[in-house]
Amino acid sequence: MARKIWKPGNMLYPVPAVMVTVGDSNINNIITIAWAGTVNSDPAMVSISVRKSRYSHGLLMKHKEFVINLVTKKLAYAMDYCGVKSGRDVDKFKEMKLTRGKASAVSAPIIEESPVNIECKVKDVISLGSHDMFLAEVVAVSVDEKYLDEKGSFDLEAANLIAYSHGKYYTLGEKVGKFGYSVRKKQTNKKYTRQKNKTKKDK
Amino acid sequence: MARKIWKPGNMLYPVPAVMVTVGDSNINNIITIAWAGTVNSDPAMVSISVRKSRYSHGLLMKHKEFVINLVTKKLAYAMDYCGVKSGRDVDKFKEMKLTRGKASAVSAPIIEESPVNIECKVKDVISLGSHDMFLAEVVAVSVDEKYLDEKGSFDLEAANLIAYSHGKYYTLGEKVGKFGYSVRKKQTNKKYTRQKNKTKKDK
Repeated sequence: MARKIWKPGNMLYPVPAVMVTVGDSNINNIITIAWAGTVNSDPAMVSISVRKSRYSHGLLMKHKEFVINLVTKKLAYAMDYCGVKSGRDVDKFKEMKLTRGKASAVSAPIIEESPVNIECKVKDVISLGSHDMFLAEVVAVSVDEKYLDEKGSFDLEAANLIAYSHGKYYTLGEKVGKFGYSVRKKQTNKKYTRQKNKTKKDK
Repeated sequence: MARKIWKPGNMLYPVPAVMVTVGDSNINNIITIAWAGTVNSDPAMVSISVRKSRYSHGLLMKHKEFVINLVTKKLAYAMDYCGVKSGRDVDKFKEMKLTRGKASAVSAPIIEESPVNIECKVKDVISLGSHDMFLAEVVAVSVDEKYLDEKGSFDLEAANLIAYSHGKYYTLGEKVGKFGYSVRKKQTNKKYTRQKNKTKKDK
């Protein structure tokens, strides 16, 4: 297969497209972040990368806290807006008719219209060049009860989350499989149970 | 809106589901990673997080290089397999009928069936608890020419990439918008051009 070699660039896709809230109850902002990811399972940790020039960068440095608000198809327009406009010029909550809610463990507000709010405390800030990476521990997660079924299971699929890929936003499409499906098919039930436990542990 | 507070956990979704290749031409392996992300634009940098117990962890520590191979719908089964099986027990290239190719700037092999190979050199390893985070600079990107159109533009959408969300794999679905679409709609063409340049720079 013929391959073309490119110069180094950002080509890891799809990535999350999330609205991050920063500040406190008086001064706060929403910044859209695609350079975000989970970096550790136990304790649960995430990273977000933010340009030093951004208005939210100062609020992050001051409070060392933020909330990651997951973005649904319904919130996609507001998410895009919050990635283009600056909190120096506009009140993004007001402009996008989003509701500031109270987080349970950090001073930054949550976006109530978001199905999942991940409250984070910054553990380290690493300057990488264009961006500073904020390494943070998840201290609480709140979810909109409308996505809980009778058994209390959370149906994230129903939230219709958005991914970012190469300049475009997409909903999630066809479900291709569950984690571990490639080995489950081939095994007996007994082996399946064993494998399942093993892979869960090893996740 | 009623919200339920959960204990801290990994709830940042969707995230990438990628196959990472490690090692050299003699000893190498494929490990599936969901805890991966872009962390810096300039220079282009990524992070991947890997448990210390994993076979690939040793190869990463030895060579300080890896390749991120993006995963298509066609590669989803192999990707899942590579996330469950250990390179200590099986040759994943052989089992999944994947082709080892030569990278342009690192010793780790690429997966030729992947549409995009992101070659990376590790700059730092940070122990976070369950996982070690490998912070790495992108040193080369190679793409399958079959996704280039006549103008040389790369059609990543045609590659049908996979995202990981809460235990399940999905293709990308409906295109909701392009970066900046929320402000373009409202502006004149002249303003649009200015805004476009601004947001590109500010990315």
